[in-house]
Amino acid sequence: MKTRDATWLSLFERDENSHLSLTERICSTVRGAVGAGYLGSGDRLPASRVLAIDLQVSRITVEAAYGRLEAEGYVVRRVGDGTFVALTMPSTDARRKSGRLIQAQLSRRGSELVATGGCVDARVAHAFTAGFPDLPAFPHEIWRRIAARKLRSDPMIAMGYGDPQGLPELRSAISSYLFQYRNVQCSPEQIVVTTSSQQALTLIFTLLIDPGDPVWVEDPCYTGAYTALVSAGAAVVGIPVDEKGICVPPASERPAPKIAYLTPGHQYPTGAILSMERRMQIVTDAFLQNTWIVEDDYDSEFRYDAQALPSLQGLDKRGRVIYVGTFSKSMFPSLRIGYMVLPPGLVASFVTARTTQDGHPPYLSQAIAAEFIAEGHFTAHIRQMRRLYTSRCDCLLESLAEHVPRVWRTSPERAGLQVTVCADVPSDLNVARDAKKAGLELACLSPLYIGDSARQGWMLGFSALDNASIRAGAKKLGRLLDGRA
Amino acid sequence: MKTRDATWLSLFERDENSHLSLTERICSTVRGAVGAGYLGSGDRLPASRVLAIDLQVSRITVEAAYGRLEAEGYVVRRVGDGTFVALTMPSTDARRKSGRLIQAQLSRRGSELVATGGCVDARVAHAFTAGFPDLPAFPHEIWRRIAARKLRSDPMIAMGYGDPQGLPELRSAISSYLFQYRNVQCSPEQIVVTTSSQQALTLIFTLLIDPGDPVWVEDPCYTGAYTALVSAGAAVVGIPVDEKGICVPPASERPAPKIAYLTPGHQYPTGAILSMERRMQIVTDAFLQNTWIVEDDYDSEFRYDAQALPSLQGLDKRGRVIYVGTFSKSMFPSLRIGYMVLPPGLVASFVTARTTQDGHPPYLSQAIAAEFIAEGHFTAHIRQMRRLYTSRCDCLLESLAEHVPRVWRTSPERAGLQVTVCADVPSDLNVARDAKKAGLELACLSPLYIGDSARQGWMLGFSALDNASIRAGAKKLGRLLDGRA
Repeated sequence: MKTRDATWLSLFERDENSHLSLTERICSTVRGAVGAGYLGSGDRLPASRVLAIDLQVSRITVEAAYGRLEAEGYVVRRVGDGTFVALTMPSTDARRKSGRLIQAQLSRRGSELVATGGCVDARVAHAFTAGFPDLPAFPHEIWRRIAARKLRSDPMIAMGYGDPQGLPELRSAISSYLFQYRNVQCSPEQIVVTTSSQQALTLIFTLLIDPGDPVWVEDPCYTGAYTALVSAGAAVVGIPVDEKGICVPPASERPAPKIAYLTPGHQYPTGAILSMERRMQIVTDAFLQNTWIVEDDYDSEFRYDAQALPSLQGLDKRGRVIYVGTFSKSMFPSLRIGYMVLPPGLVASFVTARTTQDGHPPYLSQAIAAEFIAEGHFTAHIRQMRRLYTSRCDCLLESLAEHVPRVWRTSPERAGLQVTVCADVPSDLNVARDAKKAGLELACLSPLYIGDSARQGWMLGFSALDNASIRAGAKKLGRLLDGRA
Repeated sequence: MKTRDATWLSLFERDENSHLSLTERICSTVRGAVGAGYLGSGDRLPASRVLAIDLQVSRITVEAAYGRLEAEGYVVRRVGDGTFVALTMPSTDARRKSGRLIQAQLSRRGSELVATGGCVDARVAHAFTAGFPDLPAFPHEIWRRIAARKLRSDPMIAMGYGDPQGLPELRSAISSYLFQYRNVQCSPEQIVVTTSSQQALTLIFTLLIDPGDPVWVEDPCYTGAYTALVSAGAAVVGIPVDEKGICVPPASERPAPKIAYLTPGHQYPTGAILSMERRMQIVTDAFLQNTWIVEDDYDSEFRYDAQALPSLQGLDKRGRVIYVGTFSKSMFPSLRIGYMVLPPGLVASFVTARTTQDGHPPYLSQAIAAEFIAEGHFTAHIRQMRRLYTSRCDCLLESLAEHVPRVWRTSPERAGLQVTVCADVPSDLNVARDAKKAGLELACLSPLYIGDSARQGWMLGFSALDNASIRAGAKKLGRLLDGRA
């Protein structure tokens, strides 16, 4: 049997190469590929023996070509290892070059998605990266040990296609955790594991919203949800937020919303915690009885003052709440595991739709997470992080009081991974731009407003920073704002 | 600082429990949760010390409750380990119970998604599961070794938010591989890593198709692509396929399609390989010059006869081909890594859109896959699998000739992970239903047709089966068809 690979052969046989010697044809193929950026530093070339068989030439010919390429600096050969490309041509930066050219050819929905979406690039936390857990404090050793165990597991189970709803062990672990700690009342059959809460939101809005359907969001609102709503064609209605959370409007002339997207545990971005009274109003209001309540409980593991209030899902007796959660904050972001808890009647449709979107979640990360939760490490980790984050939150509040007296908090409670503050400045964006030059990362408040009542301010993350960085950051911010006084 | 968790406290304080003793309140909480299915066998309860602090009762009270629950059989206590739920109530099967109830409330797009999508549940391969790689033959030891190394890597890089376009190392490895082995000409900047080729297709169709846009697909066509197209609102036009692949129609009165979705490497499901002549026609046809060509190269690593023909992406000089690939067949399905190669002008929009859909791919699997490719294990594995699959393909062809003479192949070439056959039967679906009872899995041909020229037949997978299973399966199939003669 001969198995020959397409490229080398077709390149080798190109008409424009026909006047060249066999050796030179190989050389010109590699030079061309490096020049065009198709091959770059560190890329492995086929072993000379293998390439000789594929091209049906003598091995001496291939050796001669590789030797010439090495002399020219295109490749390096490491004895016993292989032949590798040694150069990367300066990138043509394909992204920027002709990006505008084709933009016009996107679909209407595509253009909206692209126009409203922004790329997050928060790979490492600085002062004051918001929403970023303390990664070094994660119990890496335990995680590694579980991972090693799972990597040894039965390959037929671990590597084949999986349950599109999510690994059953993980769904059990999540439902048990949610019941005991978040007052969410669900069985594992109601849970769909997703790659992120963002994927859950996209599925929910795609499946439940027809173009033009009215949807309530809190104003200001989480960008990821807003973008997904706009892309699903929703008519988004911003509802004001005060220090007790969303101000549920009385039954009005307006049509009842198809969906109300809420963050009752810790309003994003203001940090307000929805009062018990308003919670009961939402789950019992006759006006909202045909409304789907999407409860995004993105970081409510982290409350530092009083006990967390019960989730809307647990209070709801009508089966209208879809609960969305993520492990990005409570474990780590690159895990890519989120989940939603659905009313039983929606489960089958959502599982089918999920299959058509991206199949099913990957096995390994689900299996590790399931055991991490089931063995009690997850709740232990959360307890530890609460202690750590409480002290960092206090450090930030003290530092702000001392060094940045010109800002005030949007919510009096200590919770989550950031403190949101307002300031009497003309533009939070301008301050953030200057702050960036000074090495400070400030996530701005004003762009998150939908109506015209935007306040100026920033979300100041504390969870990923030690106390020294928090203090230094606060001093810098204070100087920056004083410079504008 | 006191940190108390919502559920236990709120359950404990419920009005309907107020007449009960403290111990009995704890017991009734657990009994109720087990009865409702919120807690099930193996779920861990809080340590008595911790729960006592949270509930502000004495530890003796909690111990007494746990003791009573153990006596009743609700929990088991393991010394030095913890307290676990011992029962799972029979599932109420939430999925089925009220699934129909809410179906009517889905959005139009949601209903279409659900109506056209089907759940795949192919976790283990039987005769003749199609499209399933041989998992035991995968070099697990090498994979594990790389995984262990990656798990030890810098947590700040490994655990934080990642590049929404995909890990740069993985994009480099893919572009080098695609250039050398698939004749795809691209730089790493043109690649977007996805969780599957399905996610890539969904993104492509969402971003490029407006409702009503005409889209060509091969007839018969891959269900996953068809579903994603319908859900994006495309006006799908099926184009017939013969033994040389899609029969590109001459420039006609019909509007040129916005997209042509093609599987030139190994037509799905007939197995035809698109001839070089037709490839050139597609990439040069003036009628198609504003058409996006989506080239789904789902299994073309596996050719067993002659050399693979160059990809359309490599032949195209107009920058109109989007190339889609997956590691589900060439590595393993539960990895969940696919990718697309975009014309440079589309990259920025797609990366932004990807961010709004599910953020970015997980770190660990990307990092392992990148090193697996860069170290040469991937191409070595493919070479080995080609040898293995060739012998299995031959075994299936011989077994069919001997035991199932009533079927004939739709394509003469040996490629991919399955052989597609036709048969002179009234309904391939009926045969598949009977076959299932006999322990045979037959993926049917007729449902994949769009027009009314459906042929009856099946895709017979061989890649995950040893020769004995292949022969036994063929005998069974032969008897089954003879019984209908």
